[in-house]
Amino acid sequence: MKKEKLILVTNDDGITAPGIRTLIEAVKPLGKVVVVAPDSPQSGKGHAITLGFPLRMNQVDIFEGIEAWQCSGTPVDCVKLARDKILDQPADLCVSGINHGANHSINIIYSGTMSAAMEAAIEGIPSVGFSYLNYDYAADLSICKEVAHDITKKMLTTNLPPHTLFNVNIPNVDRRAYKGIRISRQANAKWVEEFDERRDPTGKKYYWLTGEFKNMDNGEDTDVWALENGYTALVPVQFDLTDFRLKRRLEEEWRF
Amino acid sequence: MKKEKLILVTNDDGITAPGIRTLIEAVKPLGKVVVVAPDSPQSGKGHAITLGFPLRMNQVDIFEGIEAWQCSGTPVDCVKLARDKILDQPADLCVSGINHGANHSINIIYSGTMSAAMEAAIEGIPSVGFSYLNYDYAADLSICKEVAHDITKKMLTTNLPPHTLFNVNIPNVDRRAYKGIRISRQANAKWVEEFDERRDPTGKKYYWLTGEFKNMDNGEDTDVWALENGYTALVPVQFDLTDFRLKRRLEEEWRF
Repeated sequence: MKKEKLILVTNDDGITAPGIRTLIEAVKPLGKVVVVAPDSPQSGKGHAITLGFPLRMNQVDIFEGIEAWQCSGTPVDCVKLARDKILDQPADLCVSGINHGANHSINIIYSGTMSAAMEAAIEGIPSVGFSYLNYDYAADLSICKEVAHDITKKMLTTNLPPHTLFNVNIPNVDRRAYKGIRISRQANAKWVEEFDERRDPTGKKYYWLTGEFKNMDNGEDTDVWALENGYTALVPVQFDLTDFRLKRRLEEEWRF
Repeated sequence: MKKEKLILVTNDDGITAPGIRTLIEAVKPLGKVVVVAPDSPQSGKGHAITLGFPLRMNQVDIFEGIEAWQCSGTPVDCVKLARDKILDQPADLCVSGINHGANHSINIIYSGTMSAAMEAAIEGIPSVGFSYLNYDYAADLSICKEVAHDITKKMLTTNLPPHTLFNVNIPNVDRRAYKGIRISRQANAKWVEEFDERRDPTGKKYYWLTGEFKNMDNGEDTDVWALENGYTALVPVQFDLTDFRLKRRLEEEWRF
Protein backbone atom coordinates (compact mmCIF):
# COMPACT_ATOMS: atom_id res chain seq x y z
CA MET A 1 0.00 0.00 0.00
CA LYS A 2 1.32 3.42 -0.92
CA LYS A 3 2.20 5.49 2.09
CA GLU A 4 0.30 8.73 2.46
CA LYS A 5 2.48 11.78 1.87
CA LEU A 6 3.12 14.13 4.79
CA ILE A 7 2.78 17.79 3.84
CA LEU A 8 3.90 20.59 6.16
CA VAL A 9 2.03 23.87 5.60
CA THR A 10 3.26 27.23 6.82
CA ASN A 11 3.20 30.91 5.83
CA ASP A 12 4.29 34.37 6.95
CA ASP A 13 1.00 36.26 7.01
CA GLY A 14 -0.03 34.29 10.09
CA ILE A 15 -2.24 31.28 10.67
CA THR A 16 -5.52 33.21 10.31
CA ALA A 17 -4.76 34.67 6.85
CA PRO A 18 -7.03 33.57 3.99
CA GLY A 19 -3.99 32.50 1.94
CA ILE A 20 -2.99 29.63 4.22
CA ARG A 21 -6.59 28.41 4.37
CA THR A 22 -6.68 28.28 0.58
CA LEU A 23 -3.34 26.50 0.50
CA ILE A 24 -4.57 23.87 2.95
CA GLU A 25 -7.63 23.26 0.77
CA ALA A 26 -5.40 23.00 -2.29
CA VAL A 27 -3.06 20.35 -0.88
CA LYS A 28 -5.43 18.44 1.44
CA PRO A 29 -6.42 15.93 -1.28
CA LEU A 30 -2.73 15.08 -1.83
CA GLY A 31 -1.70 13.77 1.59
CA LYS A 32 -1.74 14.20 5.33
CA VAL A 33 -1.51 17.89 6.16
CA VAL A 34 0.04 19.41 9.30
CA VAL A 35 0.02 23.18 9.75
CA VAL A 36 2.61 25.08 11.79
CA ALA A 37 2.37 28.82 11.23
CA PRO A 38 3.06 32.11 13.00
CA ASP A 39 0.44 33.42 15.43
CA SER A 40 0.87 36.96 14.00
CA PRO A 41 1.82 38.56 10.68
CA GLN A 42 5.52 38.09 9.91
CA SER A 43 5.90 39.74 6.52
CA GLY A 44 9.36 40.92 5.62
CA LYS A 45 11.00 38.80 8.29
CA GLY A 46 13.40 37.22 5.80
CA HIS A 47 15.32 34.30 7.23
CA ALA A 48 15.10 35.65 10.78
CA ILE A 49 15.23 33.18 13.65
CA THR A 50 14.52 33.82 17.30
CA LEU A 51 17.73 33.83 19.34
CA GLY A 52 17.84 34.77 22.99
CA PHE A 53 14.08 34.57 23.48
CA PRO A 54 11.91 31.51 24.09
CA LEU A 55 9.12 30.46 21.76
CA ARG A 56 5.52 29.51 22.46
CA MET A 57 3.46 27.01 20.54
CA ASN A 58 -0.23 26.09 20.83
CA GLN A 59 -2.43 23.65 18.99
CA VAL A 60 -5.46 25.34 17.42
CA ASP A 61 -8.67 23.96 15.97
CA ILE A 62 -9.45 26.29 13.07
CA PHE A 63 -9.09 24.01 10.02
CA GLU A 64 -11.59 21.16 9.93
CA GLY A 65 -9.90 17.81 10.47
CA ILE A 66 -6.37 19.28 10.19
CA GLU A 67 -3.70 19.27 12.90
CA ALA A 68 -2.63 22.89 13.27
CA TRP A 69 -0.20 24.74 15.55
CA GLN A 70 0.44 28.43 15.99
CA CYS A 71 3.87 29.59 17.04
CA SER A 72 5.11 32.87 18.51
CA GLY A 73 8.20 32.99 16.31
CA THR A 74 9.17 33.72 12.74
CA PRO A 75 8.26 31.56 9.73
CA VAL A 76 11.69 29.89 9.95
CA ASP A 77 11.15 29.18 13.66
CA CYS A 78 7.86 27.47 12.71
CA VAL A 79 9.62 25.08 10.34
CA LYS A 80 12.33 24.31 12.89
CA LEU A 81 9.75 23.68 15.64
CA ALA A 82 7.64 21.54 13.32
CA ARG A 83 10.57 19.30 12.57
CA ASP A 84 11.84 19.01 16.11
CA LYS A 85 8.66 19.02 18.20
CA ILE A 86 5.60 18.28 16.07
CA LEU A 87 6.24 15.93 13.15
CA ASP A 88 7.11 12.37 14.11
CA GLN A 89 8.63 11.73 10.69
CA PRO A 90 10.24 14.05 8.13
CA ALA A 91 7.69 15.80 5.89
CA ASP A 92 7.66 14.74 2.24
CA LEU A 93 7.00 18.30 1.16
CA CYS A 94 6.72 21.77 2.66
CA VAL A 95 4.36 24.35 1.16
CA SER A 96 4.38 27.97 2.30
CA GLY A 97 1.84 30.70 1.62
CA ILE A 98 -0.27 31.58 -0.18
CA ASN A 99 1.32 34.95 0.48
CA HIS A 100 -0.85 38.03 0.09
CA GLY A 101 1.57 40.00 -2.09
CA ALA A 102 4.46 39.43 -4.47
CA ASN A 103 7.67 37.58 -3.69
CA HIS A 104 9.19 37.53 -7.16
CA SER A 105 12.73 38.64 -8.10
CA ILE A 106 14.69 40.29 -5.26
CA ASN A 107 11.68 40.03 -2.92
CA ILE A 108 12.73 36.45 -2.22
CA ILE A 109 15.50 37.87 -0.02
CA TYR A 110 13.04 39.69 2.29
CA SER A 111 10.25 37.16 2.20
CA GLY A 112 9.24 35.17 5.27
CA THR A 113 7.14 32.93 3.02
CA MET A 114 10.17 31.93 0.97
CA SER A 115 12.49 31.74 3.97
CA ALA A 116 10.19 29.21 5.63
CA ALA A 117 10.25 27.11 2.46
CA MET A 118 14.02 27.53 2.19
CA GLU A 119 14.49 26.36 5.77
CA ALA A 120 12.68 23.12 4.91
CA ALA A 121 14.72 22.75 1.70
CA ILE A 122 17.95 23.14 3.70
CA GLU A 123 16.64 20.21 5.76
CA GLY A 124 16.31 18.15 2.58
CA ILE A 125 12.54 18.52 2.23
CA PRO A 126 11.45 19.63 -1.26
CA SER A 127 9.62 22.89 -0.72
CA VAL A 128 7.67 25.59 -2.45
CA GLY A 129 6.45 29.07 -1.59
CA PHE A 130 3.32 30.46 -3.26
CA SER A 131 2.60 34.19 -3.52
CA TYR A 132 -0.21 36.09 -5.17
CA LEU A 133 0.33 39.55 -6.64
CA ASN A 134 -2.61 40.95 -4.75
CA TYR A 135 -2.44 42.31 -1.21
CA ASP A 136 -6.22 42.30 -0.68
CA TYR A 137 -7.25 39.67 1.89
CA ALA A 138 -10.68 39.58 0.22
CA ALA A 139 -9.23 38.75 -3.22
CA ASP A 140 -10.46 35.72 -5.20
CA LEU A 141 -7.85 32.99 -4.63
CA SER A 142 -9.34 30.39 -6.97
CA ILE A 143 -6.55 30.48 -9.58
CA CYS A 144 -4.00 30.36 -6.75
CA LYS A 145 -5.68 27.27 -5.33
CA GLU A 146 -5.45 25.46 -8.66
CA VAL A 147 -1.83 26.48 -9.19
CA ALA A 148 -0.88 25.36 -5.67
CA HIS A 149 -2.65 22.04 -6.17
CA ASP A 150 -1.08 21.37 -9.58
CA ILE A 151 2.49 22.27 -8.57
CA THR A 152 2.30 20.39 -5.27
CA LYS A 153 0.97 17.30 -7.06
CA LYS A 154 3.73 17.54 -9.67
CA MET A 155 6.36 17.85 -6.92
CA LEU A 156 5.00 14.83 -5.04
CA THR A 157 5.06 12.68 -8.17
CA THR A 158 8.47 13.75 -9.53
CA ASN A 159 11.78 12.44 -8.23
CA LEU A 160 13.24 15.81 -7.29
CA PRO A 161 16.57 16.52 -5.56
CA PRO A 162 15.98 16.78 -1.78
CA HIS A 163 17.01 20.43 -1.61
CA THR A 164 14.52 21.46 -4.31
CA LEU A 165 12.94 24.83 -3.66
CA PHE A 166 10.50 26.70 -5.89
CA ASN A 167 9.45 30.33 -5.72
CA VAL A 168 6.00 30.48 -7.31
CA ASN A 169 4.30 33.82 -7.96
CA ILE A 170 0.79 34.03 -9.38
CA PRO A 171 -0.29 37.05 -11.43
CA ASN A 172 -3.23 39.22 -10.48
CA VAL A 173 -5.26 38.62 -13.64
CA ASP A 174 -8.71 37.23 -14.28
CA ARG A 175 -9.24 33.76 -15.61
CA ARG A 176 -9.53 34.78 -19.27
CA ALA A 177 -6.18 36.58 -19.20
CA TYR A 178 -4.38 33.83 -17.23
CA LYS A 179 -1.89 31.86 -19.35
CA GLY A 180 -0.51 29.08 -17.14
CA ILE A 181 2.82 28.28 -15.47
CA ARG A 182 6.20 29.37 -16.84
CA ILE A 183 9.56 28.22 -15.50
CA SER A 184 11.60 31.37 -15.01
CA ARG A 185 14.73 32.88 -13.54
CA GLN A 186 14.94 35.55 -10.83
CA ALA A 187 14.82 38.99 -12.46
CA ASN A 188 17.48 41.56 -11.64
CA ALA A 189 15.36 44.08 -9.76
CA LYS A 190 15.37 46.08 -6.56
CA TRP A 191 13.35 48.41 -4.41
CA VAL A 192 13.96 52.13 -4.47
CA GLU A 193 13.05 53.13 -0.98
CA GLU A 194 12.15 56.38 0.58
CA PHE A 195 11.38 56.70 4.22
CA ASP A 196 8.44 58.89 5.05
CA GLU A 197 9.71 61.22 7.80
CA ARG A 198 7.08 62.19 10.39
CA ARG A 199 6.92 63.63 13.88
CA ASP A 200 5.33 61.96 16.90
CA PRO A 201 3.13 63.85 19.38
CA THR A 202 6.24 64.93 21.33
CA GLY A 203 7.88 66.36 18.19
CA LYS A 204 10.44 63.57 17.74
CA LYS A 205 11.09 62.21 14.26
CA TYR A 206 10.16 58.73 13.11
CA TYR A 207 10.38 56.97 9.76
CA TRP A 208 8.04 54.75 7.76
CA LEU A 209 9.44 52.55 5.02
CA THR A 210 7.88 53.10 1.61
CA GLY A 211 9.28 52.05 -1.72
CA GLU A 212 8.93 51.58 -5.44
CA PHE A 213 9.80 48.37 -7.24
CA LYS A 214 12.29 48.76 -10.07
CA ASN A 215 12.92 46.05 -12.64
CA MET A 216 16.30 46.45 -14.35
CA ASP A 217 16.07 43.22 -16.35
CA ASN A 218 14.79 43.14 -19.94
CA GLY A 219 14.95 39.34 -20.22
CA GLU A 220 11.85 37.45 -21.35
CA ASP A 221 12.86 34.47 -19.23
CA THR A 222 12.42 36.24 -15.87
CA ASP A 223 9.74 35.92 -13.24
CA VAL A 224 8.84 39.59 -13.68
CA TRP A 225 8.28 39.10 -17.42
CA ALA A 226 6.15 36.01 -16.83
CA LEU A 227 3.93 37.83 -14.33
CA GLU A 228 3.55 40.90 -16.55
CA ASN A 229 2.43 38.60 -19.35
CA GLY A 230 -0.22 36.69 -17.44
CA TYR A 231 1.85 33.66 -16.40
CA THR A 232 2.54 32.14 -13.02
CA ALA A 233 6.33 32.32 -12.57
CA LEU A 234 8.06 29.24 -11.14
CA VAL A 235 11.70 29.91 -10.20
CA PRO A 236 13.87 27.01 -8.98
CA VAL A 237 15.90 28.39 -6.07
CA GLN A 238 19.22 27.43 -4.52
CA PHE A 239 20.90 28.49 -1.29
CA ASP A 240 24.55 28.09 -2.21
CA LEU A 241 25.24 31.81 -2.53
CA THR A 242 28.83 31.43 -3.75
CA ASP A 243 29.54 33.67 -6.72
CA PHE A 244 31.77 31.20 -8.58
CA ARG A 245 32.60 33.59 -11.43
CA LEU A 246 33.94 36.24 -9.08
CA LYS A 247 35.68 33.51 -7.06
CA ARG A 248 37.66 32.40 -10.15
CA ARG A 249 38.61 35.99 -10.96
CA LEU A 250 39.85 36.68 -7.43
CA GLU A 251 41.80 33.42 -7.32
CA GLU A 252 43.70 34.60 -10.40
CA GLU A 253 44.11 38.25 -9.46
CA TRP A 254 44.29 38.57 -5.70
CA ARG A 255 47.31 37.76 -3.62
CA PHE A 256 47.25 38.33 0.12
CA MET B 1 43.01 65.60 -5.98
CA LYS B 2 41.75 62.12 -5.22
CA LYS B 3 38.34 62.11 -3.61
CA GLU B 4 38.16 60.56 -0.15
CA LYS B 5 36.27 57.24 -0.12
CA LEU B 6 33.00 57.08 1.80
CA ILE B 7 32.70 53.94 3.92
CA LEU B 8 29.42 52.92 5.55
CA VAL B 9 29.89 50.80 8.69
CA THR B 10 27.14 48.67 10.21
CA ASN B 11 26.68 45.42 12.14
CA ASP B 12 24.07 43.21 13.78
CA ASP B 13 25.41 42.94 17.34
CA GLY B 14 24.43 46.57 17.94
CA ILE B 15 26.33 49.83 17.93
CA THR B 16 27.95 49.27 21.36
CA ALA B 17 29.52 45.88 20.51
CA PRO B 18 33.34 45.69 20.55
CA GLY B 19 33.36 44.26 17.01
CA ILE B 20 32.03 47.40 15.33
CA ARG B 21 34.49 49.56 17.27
CA THR B 22 37.35 47.41 16.00
CA LEU B 23 35.96 47.58 12.46
CA ILE B 24 35.79 51.37 12.60
CA GLU B 25 39.42 51.50 13.74
CA ALA B 26 40.39 49.13 10.93
CA VAL B 27 38.82 51.14 8.12
CA LYS B 28 39.18 54.71 9.46
CA PRO B 29 42.58 55.23 7.78
CA LEU B 30 41.03 54.32 4.40
CA GLY B 31 38.37 57.01 4.00
CA LYS B 32 35.52 58.93 5.56
CA VAL B 33 33.56 56.65 7.88
CA VAL B 34 29.85 56.93 8.70
CA VAL B 35 28.30 54.45 11.14
CA VAL B 36 24.62 53.44 11.06
CA ALA B 37 23.95 50.45 13.30
CA PRO B 38 21.16 48.89 15.35
CA ASP B 39 20.55 50.25 18.85
CA SER B 40 20.17 46.67 20.19
CA PRO B 41 21.48 43.19 19.34
CA GLN B 42 19.96 41.88 16.10
CA SER B 43 21.68 38.52 15.68
CA GLY B 44 19.86 35.99 13.55
CA LYS B 45 17.61 38.61 12.00
CA GLY B 46 18.50 37.48 8.47
CA HIS B 47 17.25 39.83 5.80
CA ALA B 48 14.37 41.05 7.95
CA ILE B 49 13.01 44.53 7.33
CA THR B 50 10.56 46.47 9.46
CA LEU B 51 7.14 46.64 7.82
CA GLY B 52 4.10 48.10 9.53
CA PHE B 53 6.10 49.77 12.31
CA PRO B 54 7.96 53.08 12.25
CA LEU B 55 11.69 53.37 12.87
CA ARG B 56 13.65 55.66 15.16
CA MET B 57 17.11 57.01 14.52
CA ASN B 58 19.43 59.06 16.75
CA GLN B 59 22.90 60.47 16.28
CA VAL B 60 25.32 59.28 18.97
CA ASP B 61 28.76 60.45 19.99
CA ILE B 62 30.58 57.27 21.00
CA PHE B 63 33.33 56.98 18.36
CA GLU B 64 35.84 59.83 18.43
CA GLY B 65 35.52 62.03 15.37
CA ILE B 66 33.12 59.65 13.59
CA GLU B 67 29.54 60.42 12.54
CA ALA B 68 27.44 57.63 14.05
CA TRP B 69 23.71 56.86 14.17
CA GLN B 70 21.79 54.23 16.05
CA CYS B 71 18.57 52.89 14.60
CA SER B 72 15.68 50.98 16.16
CA GLY B 73 15.36 48.55 13.24
CA THR B 74 17.15 45.55 11.78
CA PRO B 75 20.60 45.63 10.14
CA VAL B 76 18.92 45.85 6.71
CA ASP B 77 16.78 48.78 7.92
CA CYS B 78 20.01 50.55 8.97
CA VAL B 79 21.46 50.29 5.48
CA LYS B 80 18.22 51.49 3.89
CA LEU B 81 17.99 54.44 6.31
CA ALA B 82 21.65 55.31 5.79
CA ARG B 83 21.16 55.55 2.06
CA ASP B 84 17.90 57.47 2.15
CA LYS B 85 18.31 59.75 5.17
CA ILE B 86 21.95 60.01 6.25
CA LEU B 87 24.45 59.76 3.40
CA ASP B 88 24.40 62.67 0.96
CA GLN B 89 26.17 60.57 -1.68
CA PRO B 90 26.32 56.81 -2.31
CA ALA B 91 28.89 55.02 -0.16
CA ASP B 92 31.92 53.63 -2.00
CA LEU B 93 31.94 50.57 0.25
CA CYS B 94 29.88 49.04 3.03
CA VAL B 95 31.54 47.02 5.79
CA SER B 96 29.52 45.05 8.33
CA GLY B 97 30.65 43.47 11.58
CA ILE B 98 32.93 42.45 13.05
CA ASN B 99 30.40 39.86 14.13
CA HIS B 100 30.97 38.08 17.43
CA GLY B 101 30.46 34.55 16.11
CA ALA B 102 30.63 32.60 12.88
CA ASN B 103 28.72 33.37 9.68
CA HIS B 104 30.35 30.83 7.38
CA SER B 105 28.53 28.30 5.17
CA ILE B 106 24.75 28.17 5.68
CA ASN B 107 24.96 30.74 8.49
CA ILE B 108 24.98 33.43 5.82
CA ILE B 109 21.24 32.80 5.40
CA TYR B 110 20.46 33.66 9.04
CA SER B 111 23.04 36.37 9.53
CA GLY B 112 22.06 39.99 10.10
CA THR B 113 25.70 40.96 9.53
CA MET B 114 25.69 39.47 6.05
CA SER B 115 22.17 40.67 5.24
CA ALA B 116 23.18 44.26 5.95
CA ALA B 117 26.14 43.87 3.60
CA MET B 118 23.91 42.17 1.02
CA GLU B 119 21.42 45.03 1.16
CA ALA B 120 24.19 47.46 0.26
CA ALA B 121 25.42 45.15 -2.52
CA ILE B 122 21.88 45.02 -3.97
CA GLU B 123 22.15 48.81 -4.07
CA GLY B 124 25.33 48.52 -6.14
CA ILE B 125 27.74 49.26 -3.29
CA PRO B 126 30.57 46.72 -2.99
CA SER B 127 30.22 45.25 0.48
CA VAL B 128 31.78 42.87 2.93
CA GLY B 129 30.74 41.25 6.18
CA PHE B 130 33.38 40.24 8.74
CA SER B 131 32.78 37.61 11.40
CA TYR B 132 35.05 36.14 14.05
CA LEU B 133 34.68 32.56 15.23
CA ASN B 134 34.59 33.64 18.83
CA TYR B 135 31.48 34.72 20.72
CA ASP B 136 33.36 36.27 23.63
CA TYR B 137 32.99 40.07 23.67
CA ALA B 138 36.31 40.24 25.54
CA ALA B 139 38.22 38.32 22.85
CA ASP B 140 41.37 39.75 21.27
CA LEU B 141 40.29 41.23 17.92
CA SER B 142 43.75 42.22 16.67
CA ILE B 143 43.93 39.67 13.83
CA CYS B 144 40.36 40.63 12.86
CA LYS B 145 41.36 44.27 12.69
CA GLU B 146 44.24 43.52 10.33
CA VAL B 147 42.09 41.28 8.12
CA ALA B 148 39.34 43.90 7.94
CA HIS B 149 41.85 46.60 7.07
CA ASP B 150 43.59 44.54 4.39
CA ILE B 151 40.43 43.33 2.66
CA THR B 152 38.76 46.74 2.79
CA LYS B 153 41.87 48.35 1.30
CA LYS B 154 42.02 45.72 -1.44
CA MET B 155 38.34 46.29 -2.25
CA LEU B 156 38.78 50.07 -2.43
CA THR B 157 41.73 49.74 -4.80
CA THR B 158 40.30 47.03 -7.10
CA ASN B 159 37.79 47.69 -9.86
CA LEU B 160 35.12 45.31 -8.59
CA PRO B 161 31.62 44.74 -10.01
CA PRO B 162 29.13 47.01 -8.17
CA HIS B 163 27.20 44.11 -6.68
CA THR B 164 30.33 42.55 -5.16
CA LEU B 165 29.72 40.99 -1.77
CA PHE B 166 32.18 39.08 0.38
CA ASN B 167 31.51 36.88 3.38
CA VAL B 168 34.70 36.93 5.45
CA ASN B 169 35.11 34.65 8.47
CA ILE B 170 38.18 34.79 10.68
CA PRO B 171 39.34 31.71 12.58
CA ASN B 172 39.71 31.64 16.33
CA VAL B 173 43.42 30.87 16.41
CA ASP B 174 46.43 32.62 17.86
CA ARG B 175 48.85 34.55 15.72
CA ARG B 176 51.35 31.70 15.31
CA ALA B 177 48.68 29.34 13.97
CA TYR B 178 47.09 31.93 11.69
CA LYS B 179 47.76 31.28 7.99
CA GLY B 180 46.23 34.19 6.05
CA ILE B 181 43.27 34.69 3.71
CA ARG B 182 41.88 31.99 1.45
CA ILE B 183 39.26 32.53 -1.25
CA SER B 184 36.63 29.86 -0.67
CA ARG B 185 33.17 28.61 -1.56
CA GLN B 186 30.21 28.20 0.80
CA ALA B 187 30.34 24.74 2.40
CA ASN B 188 27.29 22.50 2.28
CA ALA B 189 26.39 22.48 5.95
CA LYS B 190 23.40 22.94 8.21
CA TRP B 191 22.28 23.19 11.80
CA VAL B 192 20.75 20.23 13.56
CA GLU B 193 18.42 21.90 15.99
CA GLU B 194 16.82 20.75 19.12
CA PHE B 195 14.52 22.95 21.09
CA ASP B 196 14.98 22.82 24.82
CA GLU B 197 11.46 22.35 26.21
CA ARG B 198 10.83 24.05 29.57
CA ARG B 199 7.93 25.15 31.69
CA ASP B 200 7.24 28.69 32.85
CA PRO B 201 6.14 29.54 36.42
CA THR B 202 2.49 28.89 35.46
CA GLY B 203 3.34 25.45 34.07
CA LYS B 204 3.03 26.37 30.38
CA LYS B 205 5.59 25.05 27.94
CA TYR B 206 8.12 27.20 26.14
CA TYR B 207 11.01 26.39 23.82
CA TRP B 208 14.60 27.60 23.52
CA LEU B 209 16.46 27.11 20.27
CA THR B 210 19.71 25.16 20.58
CA GLY B 211 21.63 23.49 17.83
CA GLU B 212 24.68 21.71 16.56
CA PHE B 213 26.51 22.69 13.41
CA LYS B 214 26.94 19.88 10.89
CA ASN B 215 29.31 20.12 7.94
CA MET B 216 28.38 17.69 5.16
CA ASP B 217 31.03 18.92 2.72
CA ASN B 218 34.44 17.26 2.38
CA GLY B 219 35.80 19.80 -0.10
CA GLU B 220 39.10 21.53 0.64
CA ASP B 221 37.92 24.65 -1.16
CA THR B 222 35.17 25.50 1.35
CA ASP B 223 34.98 28.18 3.99
CA VAL B 224 34.65 25.52 6.70
CA TRP B 225 37.86 23.83 5.56
CA ALA B 226 39.72 27.14 5.46
CA LEU B 227 38.64 28.03 9.00
CA GLU B 228 39.49 24.58 10.37
CA ASN B 229 42.95 24.95 8.88
CA GLY B 230 43.78 28.36 10.30
CA TYR B 231 42.77 30.50 7.32
CA THR B 232 40.40 33.43 7.04
CA ALA B 233 37.72 32.34 4.55
CA LEU B 234 36.65 34.88 1.92
CA VAL B 235 33.55 33.76 -0.01
CA PRO B 236 32.32 35.92 -2.92
CA VAL B 237 28.53 35.98 -2.61
CA GLN B 238 25.70 36.54 -5.08
CA PHE B 239 22.00 37.15 -4.57
CA ASP B 240 20.58 35.71 -7.77
CA LEU B 241 19.19 32.56 -6.16
CA THR B 242 18.03 30.95 -9.41
CA ASP B 243 19.03 27.28 -9.59
CA PHE B 244 19.84 27.26 -13.31
CA ARG B 245 20.64 23.54 -13.43
CA LEU B 246 17.25 22.56 -12.04
CA LYS B 247 15.62 25.20 -14.26
CA ARG B 248 17.04 23.52 -17.40
CA ARG B 249 15.88 20.10 -16.23
CA LEU B 250 12.35 21.30 -15.52
CA GLU B 251 12.14 23.11 -18.85
CA GLU B 252 12.87 19.79 -20.55
CA GLU B 253 10.74 17.55 -18.37
CA TRP B 254 7.78 19.50 -17.05
CA ARG B 255 4.71 20.36 -19.07
CA PHE B 256 1.85 22.22 -17.43
